[in-house]
Amino acid sequence: MEAPQNTKRTKASEPTLKRLPRYLHYLQKAQDKGILTISAPVIGKELQCDPTQVVKDLATTGVKGRPRIGYNIHELIQTIESFLGYNRANEAFLVGAGNLGMAMMSYPDFQRFGLKIVAAFDTNRDKIGRSRSGINILHMNKFQDLARRLQVRIAVLTVPHTVAQEVTDLLVASGIEAIWNLTPSQLQVPEHVIVQNTSMYANVTLLLKKLQEKDESESVQ
Amino acid sequence: MEAPQNTKRTKASEPTLKRLPRYLHYLQKAQDKGILTISAPVIGKELQCDPTQVVKDLATTGVKGRPRIGYNIHELIQTIESFLGYNRANEAFLVGAGNLGMAMMSYPDFQRFGLKIVAAFDTNRDKIGRSRSGINILHMNKFQDLARRLQVRIAVLTVPHTVAQEVTDLLVASGIEAIWNLTPSQLQVPEHVIVQNTSMYANVTLLLKKLQEKDESESVQ
Repeated sequence: MEAPQNTKRTKASEPTLKRLPRYLHYLQKAQDKGILTISAPVIGKELQCDPTQVVKDLATTGVKGRPRIGYNIHELIQTIESFLGYNRANEAFLVGAGNLGMAMMSYPDFQRFGLKIVAAFDTNRDKIGRSRSGINILHMNKFQDLARRLQVRIAVLTVPHTVAQEVTDLLVASGIEAIWNLTPSQLQVPEHVIVQNTSMYANVTLLLKKLQEKDESESVQ
Repeated sequence: MEAPQNTKRTKASEPTLKRLPRYLHYLQKAQDKGILTISAPVIGKELQCDPTQVVKDLATTGVKGRPRIGYNIHELIQTIESFLGYNRANEAFLVGAGNLGMAMMSYPDFQRFGLKIVAAFDTNRDKIGRSRSGINILHMNKFQDLARRLQVRIAVLTVPHTVAQEVTDLLVASGIEAIWNLTPSQLQVPEHVIVQNTSMYANVTLLLKKLQEKDESESVQ
């Protein structure tokens, strides 16, 4: 279970992994403007992060800056992209071609970030046979066979929460190893399956609660 | 800035606020099944959380369980909903009626969770005048006037990231106090404005990275 001895890369924490795409996004914009080198304090200032944190996050990828000069922006982008696996094509199946599913299929940017949705599945006969952004919508009863034949390991889950667990069981039985769960359901999966939860509801809740707390603190002042 | 002295509620941490909607979702399903009382260990087991954490999270809302009996499920649901502000109608404007924006407009569940999108805005003339789920799409040049007149304080931001900051500046100038940022951009806002970031890209990155790390650890074993 130990990491290879000769790697300069370290295992990144979840907060670091969430910040790296943000650095990357900023660095790509800076590079487009013709900037060649950049320092951690500049990145930190722009993204409102502590520069020490920036240095630490970037060191996780194995890249090193030079004193007084900073980082070569081209090298930095390449290293972060490689560390995050963006240069690999990770094929995924999307399950649930509803509104959110359709939106996910329409994002060309996911592919730039390493995720390629190669097919979508639904049980609604009105949707089957249609396509969105070149991605065909197939009947769910084809999922298991296709996942095995194409060796697809990733599923994007955008089904109604009422059927989320039932569909998850089928995904797992079909050999899916990683599920991006966009439903509000807490999925039960075997230990070897990775689940990334993105609950829209949890995020709405956080926003509304912060607003409520702000109002309460202002009314007390 | 201090909280009122006579409240039993405490300020909830961000992890607690993210777990509360999950408890609520589970409790509503349990209530639908006719369950009247429920204990923290049962909730913990179902949602794969430490029961002590469950007790602590629920105590934040001011609710108390009884020894050997647990919580009255109806009271528990009401208290969490009230704590999270779901029983208030928080009106919001959506900005950017693209694929993700349209998906957000089509979610009837947001309203149940306290967020009501009352209008959408875009600059694309093909979209203006259309509607989705009863929400009209208006020209962006009407935003400032309407936000002020209707005293809307919340904006859901689903514009392309290239214009995210520019649009944010307009939202802030129009009196918006809370922005749900669904773009990958890091927004610069004055201190009094609340931003909740939900980066789809950051979540994809986390998923792919975890899969990559799993592969690496397996290849070393």
